[in-house]
Amino acid sequence: MQYPSKLIEDAVNEISKLPGIGKKTALRLALHLLKQEVKETETLSSSLIDLRQKTKYCRTCHIISDSEDCTCESIRKDDSQLCVVEDTPDVIAIQNTSQFFGYFHVLGGIISPIEGIGPKELNIESLIERVKKSEGRIKEIILALSPTMEGDTTSFYIAKKLKPFAVKITTIARGIPIGGELEYADEITLGRSIAKRLNYDITSE
Amino acid sequence: MQYPSKLIEDAVNEISKLPGIGKKTALRLALHLLKQEVKETETLSSSLIDLRQKTKYCRTCHIISDSEDCTCESIRKDDSQLCVVEDTPDVIAIQNTSQFFGYFHVLGGIISPIEGIGPKELNIESLIERVKKSEGRIKEIILALSPTMEGDTTSFYIAKKLKPFAVKITTIARGIPIGGELEYADEITLGRSIAKRLNYDITSE
Repeated sequence: MQYPSKLIEDAVNEISKLPGIGKKTALRLALHLLKQEVKETETLSSSLIDLRQKTKYCRTCHIISDSEDCTCESIRKDDSQLCVVEDTPDVIAIQNTSQFFGYFHVLGGIISPIEGIGPKELNIESLIERVKKSEGRIKEIILALSPTMEGDTTSFYIAKKLKPFAVKITTIARGIPIGGELEYADEITLGRSIAKRLNYDITSE
Repeated sequence: MQYPSKLIEDAVNEISKLPGIGKKTALRLALHLLKQEVKETETLSSSLIDLRQKTKYCRTCHIISDSEDCTCESIRKDDSQLCVVEDTPDVIAIQNTSQFFGYFHVLGGIISPIEGIGPKELNIESLIERVKKSEGRIKEIILALSPTMEGDTTSFYIAKKLKPFAVKITTIARGIPIGGELEYADEITLGRSIAKRLNYDITSE
């Protein structure tokens, strides 16, 4: 594609490096910025720089945070439950359900031999340490990893590592998504949801 | 949505101001930047700032340019044709067809009473000046505006203004898009493409 100016070409090249944004969308975004006040672009730019340069990771739970000690301790209510997730978006997703009030532990990825990610690349050692240090305060570890092969491998590895401790290990429920149509569900999910069927309890709904 | 840090919240808010980007996509982009080198974000930020602060508009053709005199004069071949377009993306689109080698004139919008855009807000006066100054060098004005009500109104207005000059006025062809299916074409396009049918010339294809 030919661009009318070097400035716009540079901007399009940089914007289109972002995931899911092609050259055409990048051009549309660049032209949009040109129509806005200069201040808009300056605020956008500096918020990106600040995000990248100043973001820290909490040394306890490894959540993205403004400081090395996140606000977990002050805002969480239930210190007997610890939810293990792959990355920060999962923390946000679970928080938005308003169904969990315990603490989080971010692994920073999942075990994936193909991508060369082993247990040592993840925050698993610090999870074990955290459980050990809690001296029985943590009663339950909820493994909230994606139900993929890599997720299951990681769950299995962590569960094995946690065996010596007197802690209950649970995993998020798998089954037909609420609102989903039975006939469109894949065989494995449907098969498992029958094999692992639940007692129907009128009072619980 | 609750975010784990103020920095990420600010970045998401700024990114999601861009057209077609919601909070979820903005979060994905922000987290992507966090996984990249700091340098990547710095380059992106400075290219946006440069684009917004340094971009100029050519004083002749009003194309986005690195300087107030764009490179039109040196790279265009045919100075007898002038193509009138709404905005810069149209210039890029027409350039990419490799079917036009003349000069451009960017209006910077189209007449739209609803949005309060009249002929005075557009670069129409400078178009007339340009034709006048060319002293007969410009032989043809190609009106390449979108075939919408606003586009047609603008074309009509310009054509009327150009009447005193000895210049041929043409407009881009309207009809069924190449590769398009007849049965899915809208009635107006199909009706017009029959009314304005062309002589079938074996040698021209």
